[in-house]
Amino acid sequence: MSDVTRRRFVTGGALALAWALPAPRRASAQSASAGPANAQLIEDLVAANRILVDQGVVDGYGHVSARHDRDPNRFLMSRSLAPELVTAADIMEYDLDGEPVNSRGRTSYLERFIHSEIYRARPEIRAVVHNHSPSVIPFGATGVPLRPLYHMSAFLADGVPVWDIRAAAGDTDMLVRTPALGRALAQALGTRAVVLMRGHGAAVVGTGLPQAVFRSVYTEVNARLQAQAMALGGTVTYLSAEEARRAEASIGGTLGRPWELWKRKALSR
Amino acid sequence: MSDVTRRRFVTGGALALAWALPAPRRASAQSASAGPANAQLIEDLVAANRILVDQGVVDGYGHVSARHDRDPNRFLMSRSLAPELVTAADIMEYDLDGEPVNSRGRTSYLERFIHSEIYRARPEIRAVVHNHSPSVIPFGATGVPLRPLYHMSAFLADGVPVWDIRAAAGDTDMLVRTPALGRALAQALGTRAVVLMRGHGAAVVGTGLPQAVFRSVYTEVNARLQAQAMALGGTVTYLSAEEARRAEASIGGTLGRPWELWKRKALSR
Amino acid sequence: MSDVTRRRFVTGGALALAWALPAPRRASAQSASAGPANAQLIEDLVAANRILVDQGVVDGYGHVSARHDRDPNRFLMSRSLAPELVTAADIMEYDLDGEPVNSRGRTSYLERFIHSEIYRARPEIRAVVHNHSPSVIPFGATGVPLRPLYHMSAFLADGVPVWDIRAAAGDTDMLVRTPALGRALAQALGTRAVVLMRGHGAAVVGTGLPQAVFRSVYTEVNARLQAQAMALGGTVTYLSAEEARRAEASIGGTLGRPWELWKRKALSR
Amino acid sequence: MSDVTRRRFVTGGALALAWALPAPRRASAQSASAGPANAQLIEDLVAANRILVDQGVVDGYGHVSARHDRDPNRFLMSRSLAPELVTAADIMEYDLDGEPVNSRGRTSYLERFIHSEIYRARPEIRAVVHNHSPSVIPFGATGVPLRPLYHMSAFLADGVPVWDIRAAAGDTDMLVRTPALGRALAQALGTRAVVLMRGHGAAVVGTGLPQAVFRSVYTEVNARLQAQAMALGGTVTYLSAEEARRAEASIGGTLGRPWELWKRKALSR
Repeated sequence: MSDVTRRRFVTGGALALAWALPAPRRASAQSASAGPANAQLIEDLVAANRILVDQGVVDGYGHVSARHDRDPNRFLMSRSLAPELVTAADIMEYDLDGEPVNSRGRTSYLERFIHSEIYRARPEIRAVVHNHSPSVIPFGATGVPLRPLYHMSAFLADGVPVWDIRAAAGDTDMLVRTPALGRALAQALGTRAVVLMRGHGAAVVGTGLPQAVFRSVYTEVNARLQAQAMALGGTVTYLSAEEARRAEASIGGTLGRPWELWKRKALSR
Repeated sequence: MSDVTRRRFVTGGALALAWALPAPRRASAQSASAGPANAQLIEDLVAANRILVDQGVVDGYGHVSARHDRDPNRFLMSRSLAPELVTAADIMEYDLDGEPVNSRGRTSYLERFIHSEIYRARPEIRAVVHNHSPSVIPFGATGVPLRPLYHMSAFLADGVPVWDIRAAAGDTDMLVRTPALGRALAQALGTRAVVLMRGHGAAVVGTGLPQAVFRSVYTEVNARLQAQAMALGGTVTYLSAEEARRAEASIGGTLGRPWELWKRKALSR
Repeated sequence: MSDVTRRRFVTGGALALAWALPAPRRASAQSASAGPANAQLIEDLVAANRILVDQGVVDGYGHVSARHDRDPNRFLMSRSLAPELVTAADIMEYDLDGEPVNSRGRTSYLERFIHSEIYRARPEIRAVVHNHSPSVIPFGATGVPLRPLYHMSAFLADGVPVWDIRAAAGDTDMLVRTPALGRALAQALGTRAVVLMRGHGAAVVGTGLPQAVFRSVYTEVNARLQAQAMALGGTVTYLSAEEARRAEASIGGTLGRPWELWKRKALSR
Repeated sequence: MSDVTRRRFVTGGALALAWALPAPRRASAQSASAGPANAQLIEDLVAANRILVDQGVVDGYGHVSARHDRDPNRFLMSRSLAPELVTAADIMEYDLDGEPVNSRGRTSYLERFIHSEIYRARPEIRAVVHNHSPSVIPFGATGVPLRPLYHMSAFLADGVPVWDIRAAAGDTDMLVRTPALGRALAQALGTRAVVLMRGHGAAVVGTGLPQAVFRSVYTEVNARLQAQAMALGGTVTYLSAEEARRAEASIGGTLGRPWELWKRKALSR
C-alpha cells in the first residue's frame, strides 16, 4: 500500500474498521511475571521519563515504556504518575493485553493500550513513547504532513500518518482506553517511527529507549522548524528518500552522544 | 440564548447594559469573618499562586482566589502582591461585595470584584483565576474564537466569550474596579469555564483550585498551539462538541496528576 | 506637530537635520562631581541592570542609567560591561555632555550620548534604558507601528516613533556615538516613552528606574503579542487613546508590585 | 564572482564539482604533534563548547574548534562528545587532513573535515563552529536569504550562501565525512563568515573563539528576528552594505563584553 493510500485509509471514515477486528485471545486470569527486569533497563526507563520532561516533549501527562528484557510478552511502565516524578519504585510490569501483572493497588495509565498493542504488532520495537508534544499537535489537527527538514529527523521520511480516533470509533473521549483502540492506532502506525493522533498527541517507537526518546525529541524540533520554514514563504526542500535513508543509518550510530548527556542531567537531580 | 447570540451580546455596544443592573444589597458595615480557613486550602492557594507563575500564566500581575471552606459567602485571596511572593500570611478574607473582612491596613487588589461577582453568580465555583496569560491576549484583542485543539483543553468547547469592558462602561482604565463591572464580566462568563477580557486578559473558574489552575494552564497552551495550527494554513479540526464533553469528563478524573507535580515543585522552593 | 507628521519627519531623509542643530555649550574641562549618590539609587540601578537581563530585554549588550539625585546635570551608569555583571563598584558619574566626571581609566559605553541627550531634553525623566529588545527589533526594521494591545502597555499610546540614523547622518556604524546623534534621537523621542532605532534597538525613558524598567519589559511583551495578534488574521483592537490615558494612570500606581518582585530576585543571586 | 553568481554556483547542480578537485597531498603516516597548546586557549575552547549550549546554538550535537597556537597546520577539538560535557581532557589535536595526531582510542567527530578544510582554505581563521542552530535551519531549507537585520549581525552582510551537499555529491547521508566534502563546503563559504548547509545546519568562522561564538549566537538571533520581521508584512529594511561594514568594525571592538559574561557563566558550573 502506498503512503498516500495508507494516509487516506488511516484518516478516512467508513473503511477504517481496525477497531472491529477480532481481538487476540485475552487471558482470563492474571498473567505471570517475567521476573525482575534488568536494573540498567529500569534506570534507563526512569531517565527516559525525566529526559522527555527536560526536552519539553511531555509535561504532567505522557508516558514511556520499555519491553521487558526477559520476556517479549511483557513491558515495563510507571504507574499513573507525572513523568517528572517517576522513580524505579513506580515501574510496573504489564502483559500485552495492557493488564498489570501485579498492580498491588497501583493505578495504571488509562492509555496503556497504546503500548501493549504496539508491542504486539511490532516485535522489533523495544520502547514506546506517548506524548502531547506541543509543536506536533498543530500538525495532527490540520493534517499538514510532517516531513524531515534536516538529517536529525530523517526517521520521519517514511511518512507520519495522522490517526483520527473518530474513524475508528466515532465520538470518544479521545483516549486509547481499550485494546481495540490500541490496535487501530498500531495499524495506523504500521512500520513507521511516529504516528500522530488527531486532537491528542503522538506515539513514537524505537528499538530501544535511546532511539524512542531521540525520535520524540527531534519530532518536536522538526515540527517547530518545519512550521517556521513554511512561514518563510519559499519552497521548503525536505530530505530526499535516499538522503533520509542514509542519514538515519548514520545518525543511528551516534545516539549515544545525546543520550549520555541527557541521562547524566536527568539522573543528577 | 445560543452561543452566537451570546457572543454578540457580550461584545456588542449599546445593548450591553449589565453594568447598569441594580446591585445586590451591600452591607454598610464590615462583614463578619467566617473563621480560620482549612490549612490545606490555604496551602493550596499559596501553591496555586506559584504554579501559575511557574507555568507562565501570570507574571508580576494576576491573582487567584478560593471560596472559603466554612462559608460560601466568603473567599480567600492574597493582599495586593506579585503572585510569586505570596505566602500564607498574605491571604486575606473577602465577602461577596469584594470587601476585605479585616484588612488590617493591607492593600487589596483593585480587581477583586472579578472574584466576588463570579462567586456570587456561580455557586458551584470554588476557585477563580485572573491573568494576563500571554498567548491568550491576541485572541481577546482580535475576537478570533479560541477553540479546543486537543483533549487537554476540552473545557473550552462551550465557547470562550470575549468581554469588552467598553460595551459595559465606555472608556475606562480597563480595570474591573467596581462590583458593577465584576457583574458585567460574570454575566459574560455565564456558565462557561473561561472569559477573555479585551485588551486585558482572562478570568478562569473551577470547582476547585486544581481545576482552575489546570484550566488556566491549558487555555494558555491551547491559545499558543491554535495560533500555530492556524498559521500552518490547512483546515484546523477542533474537538467536536461530543468529543469535548466526553474528554472533559475523562480528563477531569486525572487532574491530580499534574497538580501533585506542580504543587510539589512550587512548594519546594 | 501631529503624530503622523512627526513620524514622517523622524524617519524621513532630507528633512531630518536634527543632528545639524547647534550643540549646547560644552565644558572644555572635566566637570565636577555632584558627590556620592544616594545608596538606594545605586542599589536600584544595579538591580535594574539585572532585571533587564532576567526579563530578556538586554543580553550582553544594552545599558540603563539614572539621573543623579543630587544634581540634575549628572547621571549614573555602569562602565562598559555586560549588564548582568554590573555591581555598585562599576557605576560611574557622567555629565550631560556624556563625559565621565572621573573615569579613573574605566571604559565608557560608546553610546552614552543616548542617555545624556535625553536627560538634557527631558527634565522630568530620571531613568533611561537602551536595549536590543528582541521582539522590538522587527518593528524597528519594518516600520510597522507598535501599538498598545493591552492595558499593561498603555504607555505606548502616544505613538512609538522609529528613528532612522541614516536620516540624521547617512551611512554610519549605527551607533549613537556623538552628542549630535544623541540629540537627533532625543528629538525623535520627543515627549514619548519609547523610541525605536531602525536596525538597532530602542530607547525607553521613565520618571524613575521602576518605570523605565517596567516600560522596557512591557514594550517587549507588547511587541511579541502584537505580532501574534496580527498573525491571527482578524482585526486587532488596540486601546483607545482615552483607555490608554486612564489605564496608564492606574497601572502607574501599581509599579511597585512587579518592581518588588523583580528586585528581590535580581539581588538574591 | 558576484554574490548572486556565487550563490547560484554553490547551490547549483552540474557545475559544482568542488568535491572533485584534486586533494592536497595527504600524509601517509600520522602527523607529529605541535606540542601542548596554550592553557588559556584550551580553557577558551572548553568555555566555547558550553557557551554555545547556553545560548541555544548547539544541543547534544555540534562542535567547535580552534587553530593550534603553536602550529597553523594543527587544530584542537573535543573527541566525539556532546558539547555540554566537554572538558580540557577531551580536547584532541588534529592535522589539516582532519586526522587526529594521537587518538589514543578516542572517537572523533565524523564531520571534522568541516574544520580541517576551512583551516586549510582560510589562513586568517582561528576558530570554527559547526551547529544545527534551530532558527537557521529553515533558511537553509528554503533558500530565503539570511540578511543583517541589525548591527549585531552586520557580519552577515557579505551574503550567507547555502551549500547543498547534493550539488557536490548527489544523495548522501548529509554528513561532511570526507576531506573532499569539507573542501566543497569551504569553497562555498569562500571569504564569508557563515555558510548554511541545506537540510543540516551551518558552519561559522572567526579570527578567534570569541568571534566565532559571537557570530554563531547572533546568526541564530538574526534568523529568528528576520523571520518575525518578514511575518509582520511590511518591507524589511536591512543594514546597507556600508552600514554593515562600519558596524562590524565597531562591534568587533566590543566582543570582549559578552565573551567575558558568557565565559564566566559557562565555567562557573
